[in-house]
Amino acid sequence: MPPTDRIRDHAGQGATTVAAHRARRRLRADRARQLADLLRRQLLTDGFPDGAFPHESTLATEYRASRNTVRQALDLLRAEGLVERLPGVGTVVVAQKFPHGLDRLMGLAETLREHGRVTNEVRTMGPVAAPAPVADRLRVTPGADVLYIERLRRLNGLPLSLDLTYIPLDLGTALLGADLENTDVFRLLEAITGQRLGQAEITLEAVNADANSAAVLEAPRGAAVLMLERLTHLADGRPVDLEFIRFRGDRITMSGLLHRAL
Amino acid sequence: MPPTDRIRDHAGQGATTVAAHRARRRLRADRARQLADLLRRQLLTDGFPDGAFPHESTLATEYRASRNTVRQALDLLRAEGLVERLPGVGTVVVAQKFPHGLDRLMGLAETLREHGRVTNEVRTMGPVAAPAPVADRLRVTPGADVLYIERLRRLNGLPLSLDLTYIPLDLGTALLGADLENTDVFRLLEAITGQRLGQAEITLEAVNADANSAAVLEAPRGAAVLMLERLTHLADGRPVDLEFIRFRGDRITMSGLLHRAL
Repeated sequence: MPPTDRIRDHAGQGATTVAAHRARRRLRADRARQLADLLRRQLLTDGFPDGAFPHESTLATEYRASRNTVRQALDLLRAEGLVERLPGVGTVVVAQKFPHGLDRLMGLAETLREHGRVTNEVRTMGPVAAPAPVADRLRVTPGADVLYIERLRRLNGLPLSLDLTYIPLDLGTALLGADLENTDVFRLLEAITGQRLGQAEITLEAVNADANSAAVLEAPRGAAVLMLERLTHLADGRPVDLEFIRFRGDRITMSGLLHRAL
Repeated sequence: MPPTDRIRDHAGQGATTVAAHRARRRLRADRARQLADLLRRQLLTDGFPDGAFPHESTLATEYRASRNTVRQALDLLRAEGLVERLPGVGTVVVAQKFPHGLDRLMGLAETLREHGRVTNEVRTMGPVAAPAPVADRLRVTPGADVLYIERLRRLNGLPLSLDLTYIPLDLGTALLGADLENTDVFRLLEAITGQRLGQAEITLEAVNADANSAAVLEAPRGAAVLMLERLTHLADGRPVDLEFIRFRGDRITMSGLLHRAL
């Protein structure tokens, strides 16, 4: 029992002790989060190049934190699957998050080129009658066929994202024989149309993975997923690619620049 | 038991039946996800203005899906806390996600202006010795004091985000007496410096909330959180505001436009 608690107990202030204890515990949890966020940053930006964290006591000195706070902060990163504690070794980085650009419209293989090879497992591919919200966004007749593709995308063999894609059938037909396993749909669409892509409307959300999505992504049930909805247009303005993408939260970050003035 | 199973069982192909059954279940789960993503989109963009979903049979016809798939899709949205099934009423929207702009650097109150009033509970505020990664990014001497602020931010009283903020002390001192409860730090920094903000480097991640963060945000433990790290500069390039923000995943979306050409 910490000394302050003992003093309060001796004074017979049981209720106050409980409240004080709770307040201290909350404060320690707050401090652990504060420290974890700083360590997370270093971890994501390769601040520990050899993959090994400094010793707890070094971190405690560096961050002017108690050993308890340091331990609790490392526990938070461990719960996220970013680090592990190895007996006799210390805390090591076990997961890597890959940076997906938010500044420019890019396919996955393009944006992760320097990090390795993207391969795609095509789980489903074929024409479906476009439901109203799909038809509306792709500007096709509701009920007309569009190409539906479902892909599990991997980086160096590790599952990264599950992509549900709708493409107007005139372009989709040309995709049927393409090398979807090894090529971004973006590249293929540019090759088919002989036109560059223009812009895309994107919406990002954080959601807990449902059981099936988690299983496909080989992530724990309920794992945080970065969900991206994206409607991509050709340079001439025609919408050609509607996607619903679930990125594993522990494997992807999205980075970019925002400007105050437009 | 569906007829096909029965036929296979009669043929004595038990193992095949199990495999076929699993494949069908997976396929149904895939279809449910596919439908849920389309309904999610409508829900988020106010496609059900009165807050009530069409009847299951209407959805089944509209989306050419089985009643089972429709039910399973609604279950997925329910598990995310977006809808509820009310006896005698049907499925209704119970949560609203608010759109945070990704196109322009804005404070929370600014970006959500049309959705209601943002209030901030200041949980902690005071000088702390800048740890190396903070000092480095804010370009102050390591160990020099910076102002640390921790705020729980609410929209119309509902917890939206937990923000950890570091600000150089020369600007931070002026913030101490400011109305942080009702004003974005961005606005205050512009008022203090007489300068517009310039740009910000942002990184987005999806993480599962730890117990303490979840409790503060009044969300379930493990709830998906949209985590934003943001370093904001003044127009003259000086970094003045480093933030670690946890947005409740069920209350915020981030939307913007990406361009293929830079």
